[in-house]
Amino acid sequence: MSKFIWPIHGGQAEALLAHFGLPADQRLDDFSANLNPLGPPAWVSDWLAKQLTGLERYPAPDYPAARQAIASHHQLQPEQVLLTNGGAEAIFLVAALHAGKRAAIITPSFGEYARACCAHRLSISEIALPAPHFTLDVDSLLEALSDTDVLFLCRPNNPTATLIDIPAMETLLNYTAAIGCRVVVDEAFIDMVGETMGEAPTEASLAPLLARYPHLMLLHSMTKFYTLPGLRLGYLLADAVTVQAAQAHQPPWSVNHLAAELVAPLLADDAFARRTQRWLASERPRMAQALTELGLEVVPSHACFFLIRPGAMHEISSAALFEQLLRQGVLVRHTHNFAGLHGGWLRVALRDVAANRRLISVLKNVLEKGTA
Amino acid sequence: MSKFIWPIHGGQAEALLAHFGLPADQRLDDFSANLNPLGPPAWVSDWLAKQLTGLERYPAPDYPAARQAIASHHQLQPEQVLLTNGGAEAIFLVAALHAGKRAAIITPSFGEYARACCAHRLSISEIALPAPHFTLDVDSLLEALSDTDVLFLCRPNNPTATLIDIPAMETLLNYTAAIGCRVVVDEAFIDMVGETMGEAPTEASLAPLLARYPHLMLLHSMTKFYTLPGLRLGYLLADAVTVQAAQAHQPPWSVNHLAAELVAPLLADDAFARRTQRWLASERPRMAQALTELGLEVVPSHACFFLIRPGAMHEISSAALFEQLLRQGVLVRHTHNFAGLHGGWLRVALRDVAANRRLISVLKNVLEKGTA
Repeated sequence: MSKFIWPIHGGQAEALLAHFGLPADQRLDDFSANLNPLGPPAWVSDWLAKQLTGLERYPAPDYPAARQAIASHHQLQPEQVLLTNGGAEAIFLVAALHAGKRAAIITPSFGEYARACCAHRLSISEIALPAPHFTLDVDSLLEALSDTDVLFLCRPNNPTATLIDIPAMETLLNYTAAIGCRVVVDEAFIDMVGETMGEAPTEASLAPLLARYPHLMLLHSMTKFYTLPGLRLGYLLADAVTVQAAQAHQPPWSVNHLAAELVAPLLADDAFARRTQRWLASERPRMAQALTELGLEVVPSHACFFLIRPGAMHEISSAALFEQLLRQGVLVRHTHNFAGLHGGWLRVALRDVAANRRLISVLKNVLEKGTA
Repeated sequence: MSKFIWPIHGGQAEALLAHFGLPADQRLDDFSANLNPLGPPAWVSDWLAKQLTGLERYPAPDYPAARQAIASHHQLQPEQVLLTNGGAEAIFLVAALHAGKRAAIITPSFGEYARACCAHRLSISEIALPAPHFTLDVDSLLEALSDTDVLFLCRPNNPTATLIDIPAMETLLNYTAAIGCRVVVDEAFIDMVGETMGEAPTEASLAPLLARYPHLMLLHSMTKFYTLPGLRLGYLLADAVTVQAAQAHQPPWSVNHLAAELVAPLLADDAFARRTQRWLASERPRMAQALTELGLEVVPSHACFFLIRPGAMHEISSAALFEQLLRQGVLVRHTHNFAGLHGGWLRVALRDVAANRRLISVLKNVLEKGTA
């Protein structure tokens, strides 16, 4: 077992099934992703079928229509927007801007910040959020930043689903502005924050702070909220000078025609966004309660997934729970590749109501056996 | 006129129409691209319509099926293949492998080699192919390489459509192996070489030489031959160690689901490839002759475009010819951004037979006026 290399991203069921000696064709209920359970919008299928003509041309350089749509959505200028090949390319571009410098990463978090920093020869120091609440103590963060050129954090954070509040972000931004440390905030899940914060998602985003903090860079994914990860669509929001510098590191036509053309109609689909946020506002607390009632430790979630682990009453480890779930045909996300978690927690996706009920039922069975 | 910034890629008609005071909605016959005039294959449209389900997942990490299909096509191992977000990403990845070192680029050629080298802080020296034949003198090339870490060349070359023959490439590869200079050959147009060379396109590619020359890297585009540039699909062929190093610089899921899924069916469509090559073998010489009969200078073409300029008998400059064609609703590719050409030549695409006839007819009119 010790030589098994855990897959570094979600899904990848084949390697996991093989590792546990399960048949490769086993049917799996997949809770290991972190996408909007309601998407994609229904009209996307018809739209796709009509796009062949567009694929026969190169995408328009600089994607003017898509940039304008994103700028309007955030009340920014198009020069502050860079369209990217998924949020992942945005991470690599902001790392390229700081090649050879010193990065700090708030962990546990998405592993690609570290990978992008390695690719561009940044040194990395990790600032760990402490279990079991994974909340940020801003004062100790500020102390840890004295020798840092660029700080990476994810808000809400993957995999903890925690959200640093805006007053804490302002404290952080004022301090980092003073010491010359740039701040990269990955807002890949920001549209999932919804109304559980008592505020609209546009207020949850830090985009309105860009005008005051030119050292702030925001990374967005459009493929999680719209459940189109195979399409590859993201963007960087920053001041115009930073956007231009990042673009110099980007291959031409980096965003495919379909992704670029979908930006404006996706952002215009208010009904889909509202429906998702209303649904999250009811299903997320219901699911949090159901998980808690099983005796699991559940980190309060501001995203479309939960970080959980067996509670004191359970005589089963997270590793054994992962394996038992897999044997029952349920795939959740292991945490072996998230700094500091060492597989001791599991990330489970919020999915549609029927799937969520299945998950609770299987968890109940497995946990009852584990404590029997 | 002097402050006009010429668009750095083909198309981009808006800026050109505005520059010459022409209406923005002017209908244009576009000869500025460099794609297969016969594509895409007819089945792609139906295929696309069925792909929504796949877009709802992340692409498989490492794209095993696509890599296997490409490896089989070239009789290589999957470990020698890296799928890329268009040929353009492959250029940036091989530049990243040589960050801070010394590059040489054979010019005039595609401008992204220089842009990628700049992004990764390589110093650049340009080795100019001399007009009007743009053929390579291998001996003087070798002399120019003494202080070079990596050489970029395009084969067949964009925009000259010239092809360095395989014996010359072997001389170059033996020499560069001895002096420790790596060689990047962009084969984006290699499938267009077809039978005019008296050999099959698979023989025109340098892929069989990879086993003997581990310092050789080949860049491929699948979007030119299959006329799907909006999809973004390319790949790097190299030894396994180089592929792994390049992959460390690549964001995850860099190739979208549609592109990755299309690799195998595109490569399996032998009928489309044969039809294209047969068609090129008849239409390319016919068009070369028609252009020559107008008195134009025509560089012998091994690709799906021609580099041309007015001949001695014409009293019109290339710049004036470009403008007159645009006023007649015909867009060709200016060469202001190709090192050494300074707009003195024009690149015209080979298109379907009817479009090619239109081009000859408009050229005839414009040139007769110009010499009248």
